[in-house]
Amino acid sequence: MAQGIREQRLQAALLAAGLDLLVCRLPEHVLLLCGYWPMNGMSFACFPVASDPVLMVPAGEQQWAESGRWSDVRTFDWGAVRSPAMLESVAGHLRALRGRLLRAGGHLRVGYEGSVESVAPAHAAGESVAVAQPTREMLQQVFGDGLVDATPLLEEQRAVKTPDEVAGIRRAVAAADIGCAAFGAWLQPGAIECEGVAAVEAAVMCRTLESQGASRARAWATILAGSGSSAAWLPFQVPRARPIAEGESAILELGVVVDGFWADLTRTYVAGHPSTRQQHIHEIVLAAHDAALAAIRPGRTGAEVDHAARQVIEAAGFGTAFHHQNGHGLGFCYHETQPLLHPAYERPLAAGMVTSVEPGIYLSGEFGLRIEDDVLVTASGAESLSHAPRALVP
Amino acid sequence: MAQGIREQRLQAALLAAGLDLLVCRLPEHVLLLCGYWPMNGMSFACFPVASDPVLMVPAGEQQWAESGRWSDVRTFDWGAVRSPAMLESVAGHLRALRGRLLRAGGHLRVGYEGSVESVAPAHAAGESVAVAQPTREMLQQVFGDGLVDATPLLEEQRAVKTPDEVAGIRRAVAAADIGCAAFGAWLQPGAIECEGVAAVEAAVMCRTLESQGASRARAWATILAGSGSSAAWLPFQVPRARPIAEGESAILELGVVVDGFWADLTRTYVAGHPSTRQQHIHEIVLAAHDAALAAIRPGRTGAEVDHAARQVIEAAGFGTAFHHQNGHGLGFCYHETQPLLHPAYERPLAAGMVTSVEPGIYLSGEFGLRIEDDVLVTASGAESLSHAPRALVP
Repeated sequence: MAQGIREQRLQAALLAAGLDLLVCRLPEHVLLLCGYWPMNGMSFACFPVASDPVLMVPAGEQQWAESGRWSDVRTFDWGAVRSPAMLESVAGHLRALRGRLLRAGGHLRVGYEGSVESVAPAHAAGESVAVAQPTREMLQQVFGDGLVDATPLLEEQRAVKTPDEVAGIRRAVAAADIGCAAFGAWLQPGAIECEGVAAVEAAVMCRTLESQGASRARAWATILAGSGSSAAWLPFQVPRARPIAEGESAILELGVVVDGFWADLTRTYVAGHPSTRQQHIHEIVLAAHDAALAAIRPGRTGAEVDHAARQVIEAAGFGTAFHHQNGHGLGFCYHETQPLLHPAYERPLAAGMVTSVEPGIYLSGEFGLRIEDDVLVTASGAESLSHAPRALVP
Repeated sequence: MAQGIREQRLQAALLAAGLDLLVCRLPEHVLLLCGYWPMNGMSFACFPVASDPVLMVPAGEQQWAESGRWSDVRTFDWGAVRSPAMLESVAGHLRALRGRLLRAGGHLRVGYEGSVESVAPAHAAGESVAVAQPTREMLQQVFGDGLVDATPLLEEQRAVKTPDEVAGIRRAVAAADIGCAAFGAWLQPGAIECEGVAAVEAAVMCRTLESQGASRARAWATILAGSGSSAAWLPFQVPRARPIAEGESAILELGVVVDGFWADLTRTYVAGHPSTRQQHIHEIVLAAHDAALAAIRPGRTGAEVDHAARQVIEAAGFGTAFHHQNGHGLGFCYHETQPLLHPAYERPLAAGMVTSVEPGIYLSGEFGLRIEDDVLVTASGAESLSHAPRALVP
């Protein structure tokens, strides 16, 4: 079959790892392998190193699955009272695949998702799928003891995006920009945090679906105002049914998924008139953000880019108020492990990587302020994918 | 320490299984063990059979964690650039716990979540946690080869709820009722499916937080109208940016989580005036729903209750249009495995179980119609926890 860029990279990686086959069921990896984002976690993408790949999906999902790159889509019954157990149906398909791959007996080395402990939701986001003992045992029954944990291989594959994948991430960031605009339009003295969350999520979902080219969109917004925002770098704060006061700043932390691709933006805006203190902190964070953007290019390490932003904040006297790393990969999920803009990440950036850039200053008892964009590493530098204003008053 | 009902049941189950300790990190099981719903998947609940339990959480989560039933809450740093890896921090706490439990050397049998492949999101719902190789290896390093898959034990524990847990589910169902009311108020000819989704989710989140007693609420709504609803029993349909026509019926499928406890409701309402055909199908589904409610009591099997509803639909000539099971347990997540109201589920119901009751008829090319309530099995029968109208026009 004609191979796309992603399939060529996967084949090279499997050859290098001595694997005959890669079998993935996590929605983010099904998307990675074949370009289709599953409705739920019942789809299996199977990529053999030396023959055509196969996507296995529940029958009702077939028309969606055919939107992906792979032409060989096989189905099984699922969910009806008379359907067999899902893993049994998949095992049947896998045994047939194994038979085709092993013309004259022998042994296959098969990679699977053994070590993924942070999983992105599928479209049906109220329940996520994990790969634990049942999937592992099913794969062992089909393939014997040739099972290999391919999680590191998958992490490497995800790190550098193809042009098509970058286009998917651009659509997600454009949807997140819609959310930032809705945040700016909503924020005013007297506004209620949890109502802003609802307004932002509704804007992303509806306006993205109503625009061209997206069929599925969802947002996860957190809005924290006033002193509550001083801990906004940790996911332990909860939007409240509390009115925002005149002059309080509010942080929007926004995760967006559009047809499987993710964006992760943060904006800090002030309800009413910013204070001198807020303006001062904002100038420092904005300068740190610009410094990181200017530092990004292929060959620079994540630590170097982190340092570029961190030294701006340290020089201004707020080093201890910037607790977290300056960025992380993203695209197939909200937070990826490659690359990191972190003091200890010594690996080089490469063109095609997408990373967040998110310096912040958190002043306990006062407020927190963060600016986060999603940035494509280009051949010569960095391209910020977001167009949402980074100003303190939108 | 003084033990609650849940702790007494857990202790009895561990004794029966020959386990010395249960270690859970999935948010739904942390909630089950200690009554606290984690912000994310970095908390570990440790329940020894013969001494006081311990909850381990990231430091910023401590004040939330202390809202649970366990007084021994230990913390570790997480998320800052200088924090050690989370599993290493947890391993340190677990080694100390192991030392306390093993006064004079020896061996512990430790249960963990080895086989959970469908996971409920934590509060930070854009990324879910799974228990895969890294957690298993960490537990093996701390506890040696005494590790046991306790998933079946946990499924049994979840099946019968304590009065406190039922109270939590009641709060979730009340929030879902808010969503059904918002659906009824929103639905009219010309309304757009995806805007209804946003309206329902916003109502659940904001009005629940604004009411007494809930600190965290989130909803997942799907609205499918017209012929799109004829496949609404499978999660392969997507709300569209398309106006609903006069006389079309629309199905709302609604999952809601409030402080960790789940509700799962479905209502089918008509935009405008229902047709004779819609009214006829609605009468049959309502009669099937009533028949299932009347059949529920301790000692009846799930198959018997399924049959009570199914025979109403079969007698009306629509048996082949009711493809799915009639109900499933819920409460710690959207869909639990115990009990099922399914033709093949021969186990008896027990007081304290919570199950959905959800007969439906799906007419290809026409429309689908489902009514779903969440039902508590009482000592003498069934109590429907929802008060949302089951009528065709709300």
